[in-house]
Amino acid sequence: MYIGIDIGGTNIGIGMVDNENNLIYKDSIPTRCESGYREIIKNIIDLIYKVINCTGIHKTEVKGIGIGIPGIVEPKSGIIIDSVNLKWKNVKIMDEIENEFGVPVYVGNDATVAGVAELEVGAMKGYNSGVLITLGTGVGGGIIINGNTYDGSNGIGSEIGHMIVGENYYNCNCGRNGCLETFCSSTAIINYATKLIEEGCNSLMLEYVEDDIKRIDGRIIFKAAENGDNVACEVVDRMVKYLSIGIVNVISIIDPEVFVIGGGLSASGDFLLSKIRQQVLANTYFKEVETGRVVLSNIGNDGGIIGAANLCKHHG
Amino acid sequence: MYIGIDIGGTNIGIGMVDNENNLIYKDSIPTRCESGYREIIKNIIDLIYKVINCTGIHKTEVKGIGIGIPGIVEPKSGIIIDSVNLKWKNVKIMDEIENEFGVPVYVGNDATVAGVAELEVGAMKGYNSGVLITLGTGVGGGIIINGNTYDGSNGIGSEIGHMIVGENYYNCNCGRNGCLETFCSSTAIINYATKLIEEGCNSLMLEYVEDDIKRIDGRIIFKAAENGDNVACEVVDRMVKYLSIGIVNVISIIDPEVFVIGGGLSASGDFLLSKIRQQVLANTYFKEVETGRVVLSNIGNDGGIIGAANLCKHHG
Repeated sequence: MYIGIDIGGTNIGIGMVDNENNLIYKDSIPTRCESGYREIIKNIIDLIYKVINCTGIHKTEVKGIGIGIPGIVEPKSGIIIDSVNLKWKNVKIMDEIENEFGVPVYVGNDATVAGVAELEVGAMKGYNSGVLITLGTGVGGGIIINGNTYDGSNGIGSEIGHMIVGENYYNCNCGRNGCLETFCSSTAIINYATKLIEEGCNSLMLEYVEDDIKRIDGRIIFKAAENGDNVACEVVDRMVKYLSIGIVNVISIIDPEVFVIGGGLSASGDFLLSKIRQQVLANTYFKEVETGRVVLSNIGNDGGIIGAANLCKHHG
Repeated sequence: MYIGIDIGGTNIGIGMVDNENNLIYKDSIPTRCESGYREIIKNIIDLIYKVINCTGIHKTEVKGIGIGIPGIVEPKSGIIIDSVNLKWKNVKIMDEIENEFGVPVYVGNDATVAGVAELEVGAMKGYNSGVLITLGTGVGGGIIINGNTYDGSNGIGSEIGHMIVGENYYNCNCGRNGCLETFCSSTAIINYATKLIEEGCNSLMLEYVEDDIKRIDGRIIFKAAENGDNVACEVVDRMVKYLSIGIVNVISIIDPEVFVIGGGLSASGDFLLSKIRQQVLANTYFKEVETGRVVLSNIGNDGGIIGAANLCKHHG
């Protein structure tokens, strides 16, 4: 029996997960970032007690607690070095919860945790190595090597969104130019679609949003592209071009067995997937060697909790 | 006691290496690629017998044989999928030598083998993870993760030279544009220096080569740059710019404890190293997190043999 906790900028999800990965109980509370980390950790401790009480499971049956957070985690100490979303710097959540409950606590980056969920119950099941690429507001990465999570020696590995893959017309939030997430995140494609429309391109997208350009989002872009809109197709093709460069770069370095595409934009499903596969194939340079299969994520909304619970088993 | 074999396009080096990594005997023969792989494997077998005989070491004391080759190796089978230098495709060297000598045989890419040498007797000693980047005719990579070699699931990991890091004015041999080795190999910097000079830039380099532009090589470029030649400085700075993008990309993915710069161009020593360190620091995006130290290779000419012998211990 394991407890998984998924700390997001808006909500904290928690669940009791059994050894067969059944989520036998779940709950959530608002994160309330403004209250500060001490208060939030206190809330989390209360929430863990609530889950233990409500499930009737004895404290000694809980073999570990895993926590996913949106930020950078120091691998050995579990210290949260930086979380922009939570506004946390150098927060020692691991020690506090370990002291309270006397069980091993593991803390991981949320994309890494999602990768663990893919490995346990999703599209990476049965593989020994894999890379999850989440296409959302940013681009995240979860790396599995030899069946375990891989975050690097300082906790900043698997930050695939900050791999430089070309030159872009605007800089990344990190201050540099050409990061993968400035080409492939939903923010990036909205930015590019808006730019093209503002430059005078006519598009179905405008019709969908009743000329309110601010309402353009990833779903609108993919809907228009699927309906053959030239501007939307250009936006999607540019995204896929750079994503496939990113994927082939990851092949050139860690050559995993499988790539899993997750995050909000993966909802565009086979339309996106077939384009990515085509471009990855076009971009691979050792044509005679098989490369990692590209598939869509298939963990559900509870992936964050299940992945966090499984950090206990797969902590690298 | 281990035997290490370093197969290059010109020569095959072999050595008997003891458990303390002393090279107690070494020998070499010309590769003679034109004779075909069957003949070469026969020559290697003869050479192994010669080493065993000359050292007086009993066959049963040899615990393993490691072989480094310039090419792609299928991780499990040791099949050499492709070696451009040797003109080999799908060559099963591992089985043949294993059958002959009855000891475990490991085959690895030569840059990976050089990485193992750095780990055992060089600049990676004492580290658990590291990435060797060899700057030679091409750009190669040797990755160590958790103390073992890492070549990926299909043997095409650690091909760092083919990571795309920008846009270049000419294409890579692999057919794509923007590969690291088209910016950072000796071939790349010679190409760029020649281009600038042919475009009319005046340079000390021309003086060094007595106006014979074809004689410009990496050594000439670095010598001119160290003496303040503007053109050579531009060539070196461009190389360092993209190399540091490559290094920070590798940090974004596998975040190793150390980077080792090897290959012919590393002979330019501290002049190159200080420029790389400066640019890597400028390019890292999580300023509060330590990143892998960048150092120069310090294995000698026997690194290929010692690394190959140690494949037996560190095969990932």
